[in-house]
Amino acid sequence: MNTNDNRPPLRIGLDIGGTKVLGVLIGPSGRVIAEAREATIHGPEGTVKCAVNAIDKLLSDAGPRASIAGIGVGIPGLVDPLTGVVSHAVNLEITEPFDLHTALRDRLTHVPQADPGPLPIIIDNDLNVAALGAGFLRGETDTDLAFVAVGTGLAAGIVLDGRLRRGAWGAAGEIGHVPMDPAGPLCPCGQRGCLELYASGSALERQWGERSVRPAPRDVFDAAAAGDVRATRIRDEFAAALAWAVRLLVLTYDVKNVVLGGGVSSLGEPLLQAVREQCDMACARSQFLTALGISDRIALSPMGVPVAAIGAAVAGGAASVETTLHSSTGPIEVNI
Amino acid sequence: MNTNDNRPPLRIGLDIGGTKVLGVLIGPSGRVIAEAREATIHGPEGTVKCAVNAIDKLLSDAGPRASIAGIGVGIPGLVDPLTGVVSHAVNLEITEPFDLHTALRDRLTHVPQADPGPLPIIIDNDLNVAALGAGFLRGETDTDLAFVAVGTGLAAGIVLDGRLRRGAWGAAGEIGHVPMDPAGPLCPCGQRGCLELYASGSALERQWGERSVRPAPRDVFDAAAAGDVRATRIRDEFAAALAWAVRLLVLTYDVKNVVLGGGVSSLGEPLLQAVREQCDMACARSQFLTALGISDRIALSPMGVPVAAIGAAVAGGAASVETTLHSSTGPIEVNI
Repeated sequence: MNTNDNRPPLRIGLDIGGTKVLGVLIGPSGRVIAEAREATIHGPEGTVKCAVNAIDKLLSDAGPRASIAGIGVGIPGLVDPLTGVVSHAVNLEITEPFDLHTALRDRLTHVPQADPGPLPIIIDNDLNVAALGAGFLRGETDTDLAFVAVGTGLAAGIVLDGRLRRGAWGAAGEIGHVPMDPAGPLCPCGQRGCLELYASGSALERQWGERSVRPAPRDVFDAAAAGDVRATRIRDEFAAALAWAVRLLVLTYDVKNVVLGGGVSSLGEPLLQAVREQCDMACARSQFLTALGISDRIALSPMGVPVAAIGAAVAGGAASVETTLHSSTGPIEVNI
Repeated sequence: MNTNDNRPPLRIGLDIGGTKVLGVLIGPSGRVIAEAREATIHGPEGTVKCAVNAIDKLLSDAGPRASIAGIGVGIPGLVDPLTGVVSHAVNLEITEPFDLHTALRDRLTHVPQADPGPLPIIIDNDLNVAALGAGFLRGETDTDLAFVAVGTGLAAGIVLDGRLRRGAWGAAGEIGHVPMDPAGPLCPCGQRGCLELYASGSALERQWGERSVRPAPRDVFDAAAAGDVRATRIRDEFAAALAWAVRLLVLTYDVKNVVLGGGVSSLGEPLLQAVREQCDMACARSQFLTALGISDRIALSPMGVPVAAIGAAVAGGAASVETTLHSSTGPIEVNI
């Protein structure tokens, strides 16, 4: 369906996670106009259903005269952005390759399009769109950052010189499986002492070992702040491992900014402080590292802002999956 | 001096090292027409003198009717490619910032130029031009590689998606100072267990501990090949550390190829085999790593080819220091 209205077109971005789908509707100036939140339904058909539900909610908020320039979807797992085929999205119970692009296209014929021709639907890995979103929110055209998702595991989405860095085999940002300690424990990946055994929410949970209704990272950081010696040690070892990840990202390809995101980043300032402190301690005896201003490069993903959904909308509004942030119209206002 | 000749212009590239200056004269099709080799003279003025000597030798080989489109110079130390100012080139005894660009320009007024206006003289870090040269020699327009110089220390020059990756602070490729073992020895940089304490010529020398007229890497590899148990252990630990460097480069930004260069790479095939073997062993238990084809990404810098000088010529022939390999005319013939 095409509309011949003069109202500027809008973009939709979705971040499909294991428990919820976050959606945003973005205006031409980059302002977030509406948000949607749906419970995830697992399996290929469930994923399509909850995605369409979120889109319909956003369309309803957009009003009857709105038109859509494009839709972007961020989803965990292996994604071929050229075809929109998703596989290994274990959290969504998508194990066999699934053509999400075609499934969505067939279910979205009712979307009022801004332009004739097929509705642009871009599907990409959730960390890639999160990195795009984080760059977009910084309002820089030459964004150079790693979005480090600290959650069950540890991995990063990367934008270098304003371009998404997927890597030669699509494996860029798999920092969780760089071995940090040759004498460390065996990792399920088969190596020893992988970074994510130390720098993840699961690592904190395993080290802490106490059950409570709250997530372990929150308990550990609160107990450490209250002076608990064991919690302080666990917090500092975790923060030191994250600080190692930051040095890794700087000393290999010298990324300008490292944005801490993912579930554990909801700890906010105490997390940032702990990581910066460990980073400064590691760099203190090294003139070389000190000169690189590493701890100043670390930032938190903005609290409560659906960065990945915004990044998906950025990707959805671009002409191709090889979108760069140069195509953006400048800094966006986030009004949520 | 301009020439109004119709002969296609040539390019000159220099690689200024601590002991020698290697120069190449490159034709329009990318063929190496002539080479020069001069002993390095230390200090700022000495550096200029030996560079000019090498250039004059190449000009003499070029003949009286030749014209030069540009000159590129690779040099160790910190280089600002926009100004051509060099500092911290310890091997050359250049400690204070030195404007090599202006010094060379003033001494090269006799060069027959292909075009009116100032003669393009591009000065860059030796590893950056080596990476450009390695990419150029591969003949790919979308080169994606790290040129890992294994010498006294360990560092890399990096080209991603056909573009030189300098990094936000010019520190891309400083992989020698990623800590590999938290229980390792103190590094002069101030950290513990840095990679270059294990994966460098100095590391081999320190471990081997025996003095001979030949470089330690050669002695260690030969003794290991002859069945010496201690040499085998030293060789394998060194190769394992280099294999760790390769995994590091892949798991962070997923570079397509890793080219082993620098002094130690003159060991040739036995080095490549040892690193690949250690890489395969590290990946063997990991389906994830095996799927990334890491050991197949490793290659040797071509033996006896002045890669950095060729890369300098590539840089010197480009319109700006932000040269990409896309500007190259395709694979070059190296005829030496």
